Amino acid sequence: VSPAIITLLTDFGSRDAYAGVMKGVILGICPEARLIDLSHSVPPQNVAAGALLLRGAAPYFPAGTIHVAVVDPGVGGRRAAILVQTPRAMFVGPDNGLLHPAATAFGVQRVIELSRSEYHLPEVSRTFHGRDVFAPVAAHLANGVAPDAFGAPRHGLESLDLPLPSPTAEGVRGEVIHVDHFGNLVTNLTRQDLGFPGREVSISIAESAPIPLVGTYGEVEIGELLALIGSGGNLEIAVRDGSAAERLVAAAGAAVQVRSV
Amino acid sequence: VSPAIITLLTDFGSRDAYAGVMKGVILGICPEARLIDLSHSVPPQNVAAGALLLRGAAPYFPAGTIHVAVVDPGVGGRRAAILVQTPRAMFVGPDNGLLHPAATAFGVQRVIELSRSEYHLPEVSRTFHGRDVFAPVAAHLANGVAPDAFGAPRHGLESLDLPLPSPTAEGVRGEVIHVDHFGNLVTNLTRQDLGFPGREVSISIAESAPIPLVGTYGEVEIGELLALIGSGGNLEIAVRDGSAAERLVAAAGAAVQVRSV
Amino acid sequence: VSPAIITLLTDFGSRDAYAGVMKGVILGICPEARLIDLSHSVPPQNVAAGALLLRGAAPYFPAGTIHVAVVDPGVGGRRAAILVQTPRAMFVGPDNGLLHPAATAFGVQRVIELSRSEYHLPEVSRTFHGRDVFAPVAAHLANGVAPDAFGAPRHGLESLDLPLPSPTAEGVRGEVIHVDHFGNLVTNLTRQDLGFPGREVSISIAESAPIPLVGTYGEVEIGELLALIGSGGNLEIAVRDGSAAERLVAAAGAAVQVRSV
Repeated sequence: VSPAIITLLTDFGSRDAYAGVMKGVILGICPEARLIDLSHSVPPQNVAAGALLLRGAAPYFPAGTIHVAVVDPGVGGRRAAILVQTPRAMFVGPDNGLLHPAATAFGVQRVIELSRSEYHLPEVSRTFHGRDVFAPVAAHLANGVAPDAFGAPRHGLESLDLPLPSPTAEGVRGEVIHVDHFGNLVTNLTRQDLGFPGREVSISIAESAPIPLVGTYGEVEIGELLALIGSGGNLEIAVRDGSAAERLVAAAGAAVQVRSV
Repeated sequence: VSPAIITLLTDFGSRDAYAGVMKGVILGICPEARLIDLSHSVPPQNVAAGALLLRGAAPYFPAGTIHVAVVDPGVGGRRAAILVQTPRAMFVGPDNGLLHPAATAFGVQRVIELSRSEYHLPEVSRTFHGRDVFAPVAAHLANGVAPDAFGAPRHGLESLDLPLPSPTAEGVRGEVIHVDHFGNLVTNLTRQDLGFPGREVSISIAESAPIPLVGTYGEVEIGELLALIGSGGNLEIAVRDGSAAERLVAAAGAAVQVRSV
Repeated sequence: VSPAIITLLTDFGSRDAYAGVMKGVILGICPEARLIDLSHSVPPQNVAAGALLLRGAAPYFPAGTIHVAVVDPGVGGRRAAILVQTPRAMFVGPDNGLLHPAATAFGVQRVIELSRSEYHLPEVSRTFHGRDVFAPVAAHLANGVAPDAFGAPRHGLESLDLPLPSPTAEGVRGEVIHVDHFGNLVTNLTRQDLGFPGREVSISIAESAPIPLVGTYGEVEIGELLALIGSGGNLEIAVRDGSAAERLVAAAGAAVQVRSV
């Protein structure tokens, strides 16, 4: 049996040792765990951004992976601490919507509230449940402790109001949901929304001129705008060897129009 | 026996491959070592900032962990290269104060100067002892080489002049010692300095109005200032879902006043 | 036998989970692989910068290491996907010059085009070969699959036009090829170019006054400019405890003059 994989996704940044401390706690309980960083650069407190990253990344991990996610503006308050069991993976984190898109994509089997304190650190702070609750629970899961040992089942999971595409007279309207490191504008529109294959479309963002839909960056000249289905399956607007976010002065929330032509 | 854990804390940033190269050197000597990044974003040459991070993180790692820390403005000069043995962990790095707070918190058993070159890389540069001295020494330690094989004992350890709280007529005066990724202002004041429990206090920073001392972020409205005992045990000043550093235009060194009320 | 080491070098940044996803893919195929980040902060699309980092870091890893590098502006176009076998290491990535300096430094034994799709993910996107091609190939290599199983041999490897030093009437002229995290200006000049030992030289950058060549930072006062042979064997221009890039307003490409005196 291969050692368990535990991924970490947080908004902790890299300046402090918060993520490193979580790893120390995990290795103290499960010394063999394989620890993988998804990202620690989720914009502070931005639950939706973290949820989208987690949903995009989780399918590429082996069955049995334990995903710990901590974007937790309500830490110490009333939001529950949970684990979510799915056929393919376990998710551990706050019940604030962060786990919802990834877990529902796999199919939620069970939600457990992390109420059993014998699986937490002996002293639980009111500001850092990543270290005091989520890390030790993930490590005990990796050691083979059964999910229902961690607390009582809950009905349902907090969801997120993610923006959905809406039909328009001429086609469909979506929006930018993420700007990646390259300045690519990732939208909430998928191949299905574009009516692939066999429909010609015109794409624009805000008041921009139509942007050609292509299959690969090389189909336009360096410095030109293009639209393509990105590696996550979503429509992305990019500049070849450049930044669409800078070119279009666009950020998450910008409207994207798709028109049949 | 679980493989040894080696943590890395540096001011190398992420742009270069300096930290990766240290890991390559370690794995060439001790292929099983578990490598954990604490942070590589210590402000360049800021020994005190690195020392505080190390002291805060080390207690969360299992017994036997080897902590390598490199914030080393005097590299190639007269400062010694050392290892420090404590009951709980080993520390490897320059003797410039960086290791002092963490090692003294555990209790210093032995300080060894890393003078035995058979445990260094064959060619030692005058600018990158992280790669040429500290990484190979940590890897040999992880392989079970005894601490006193690495060189001669030294008496004592370079210390740091960390700012200490001072009593005032009305209470106690401390200062901000770290601004974290969220803009929280971490001070050098602890629960003891506030006289918990049972004393009412008024907290202010610079010329700010009094800031309420609470137990958790949710006790104030979004966007409001608060003070609480943070996850490291120190008084922190924060803005709920925001940045206290921005709100108060405050940085490390800012004075914090605690007054009995 | 120790588990294979796989290093990752990309321009993916830390904001997204692209590097994490590559690790998930690798662990799904080779659960024991040791994963080491060299850097994910190569400037976007800057193949030369990535190539220099890889060449500098690879020699410090144990024999048998598999280096995956992805700085890939031509992804989805005509550039080939390759692996390069050398006596000391394997390199996996796009054939755009990125692998050339590191692989030729070790000696190229064989170049294989990654044409056998059974070693790729079932669905290969046109924008993320790091995830769909390079990660799974590296993982299969780590599992012991022979290099020639991945496709047909190629003759040669795309090279890079890296700037070379040129002799001048008074000495030699080089240039800055990298600015590191500390603001040190790494040049393409080596010890040999300076005629060590036994020749006195005067170094300047752009129109700067001559800069003293020293052996270690401590030979000049804090805040002063110095030149030294850095840890990678190249001439570097630095400011003690400061940033030469800021002081001289210099970036990659800046001319560096060495004159005999």
